[in-house]
Amino acid sequence: MSEIKVLVHDVFGTVVDWRGAVTADGEALGGRLGISGVDWQEFADQWRGLYAPSMNKVRTGELPWTNLDALHRMALDQLLDKFGVAGKLSEEDKVWFNLTWHRLKPWPDSVPGLTRIKTKYIIATLSNGTVRLLTDMAKHCGLPWDTVLASDIPKAYKPDAAMYQSAIELLGSGDPGAVMMTAAHNNDLVAASKHGMKTAYINRPYEKGEKQDRDFKAEHDFTYVATSFEDLATQLSC
Amino acid sequence: MSEIKVLVHDVFGTVVDWRGAVTADGEALGGRLGISGVDWQEFADQWRGLYAPSMNKVRTGELPWTNLDALHRMALDQLLDKFGVAGKLSEEDKVWFNLTWHRLKPWPDSVPGLTRIKTKYIIATLSNGTVRLLTDMAKHCGLPWDTVLASDIPKAYKPDAAMYQSAIELLGSGDPGAVMMTAAHNNDLVAASKHGMKTAYINRPYEKGEKQDRDFKAEHDFTYVATSFEDLATQLSC
Repeated sequence: MSEIKVLVHDVFGTVVDWRGAVTADGEALGGRLGISGVDWQEFADQWRGLYAPSMNKVRTGELPWTNLDALHRMALDQLLDKFGVAGKLSEEDKVWFNLTWHRLKPWPDSVPGLTRIKTKYIIATLSNGTVRLLTDMAKHCGLPWDTVLASDIPKAYKPDAAMYQSAIELLGSGDPGAVMMTAAHNNDLVAASKHGMKTAYINRPYEKGEKQDRDFKAEHDFTYVATSFEDLATQLSC
Repeated sequence: MSEIKVLVHDVFGTVVDWRGAVTADGEALGGRLGISGVDWQEFADQWRGLYAPSMNKVRTGELPWTNLDALHRMALDQLLDKFGVAGKLSEEDKVWFNLTWHRLKPWPDSVPGLTRIKTKYIIATLSNGTVRLLTDMAKHCGLPWDTVLASDIPKAYKPDAAMYQSAIELLGSGDPGAVMMTAAHNNDLVAASKHGMKTAYINRPYEKGEKQDRDFKAEHDFTYVATSFEDLATQLSC
């Protein structure tokens, strides 16, 4: 059995709280532009809700390769129309709001836990974001990645095999057992394990607030199950 | 004219002193195995001398895609034979020595200069090494990269266009003028500028010791010309 050398991490929901940050940026924008009557948490939830269907259009070939910034923008334009506020935002406002996904903030345990894990392991992202999004986010909130792996490297979205294989090849020197995927989502870890990677489940039962309808606990036999990155660091003796 | 947002860096010779580190590891290995009569600095120079010809075999299609670890190993085996010491090294010794390229050490100005530059810009590698080699090296010697771009992402070696384009796409959001290449090698910067990137020459006239035969100074009209990363940080007001 290979020794773990590298931990690659799902980011949205696992490392960072997308819901709080997108809602806060929406409220700030609404306040600045005098927009009333929009529930920005609902807006954030619907924006995130369009994420999986929009990636699936790329995964099934309905859309050619389209990066996550462009998918987020298509969804944003659709929702601004739906909420009846498209005419109140300038193009500059829309660009700024779309970049909210580059400015997400970590859960409280993420930076201290990952900083401990980094002392013994290579730590990287393995996210459906872009390299630039993940790099901007890390600089913005102090995430201590050794490097960033992202969907625009293999031009594929998880759970496509090309994403997990990119981590195994680029950081694992071809040995899947040397690489552990961490995520708060059972399906991501099940996919990683199919490629021979080790798995660590981080429990985030409040990622989607009261609307959460899955991923309340580890549903499979993962290598590690943790309540936080601090807990995972302790289990890894970091 | 686009504002520079990202600096990508050549690594071997520009950021790290490959010659000193490879020579020191050779001397340590020779001492441990009781090998006498090998000039390890000459060995290091010949190993590095096989670098461009071996990459050219990939660039011309004589070899299929082969990563730099594998090219280094082919050259190592060839040189151990040539120096008459192949039989004195175990496979484990050869694996260890081949990984000398993952353990190179920075020039004295690199970490302090890059740390200053990182406060205002995204900093990344753009190197013919692998993602894992560059990640290992950064952890080994404290290089503060925001992320690592490497030849095994586009599966191409500089000066192929695919390498420069990978930096423009993955970190520059498609805008070449937002990305500046830094290197101690005129030809790397000339290639980058052909793709619309900005350029910074870092003078390393002693990279190859007394055997240096080129790159004593900037030979073209680069965006910046600096004596060190500390000097470049000062010119960039970091």
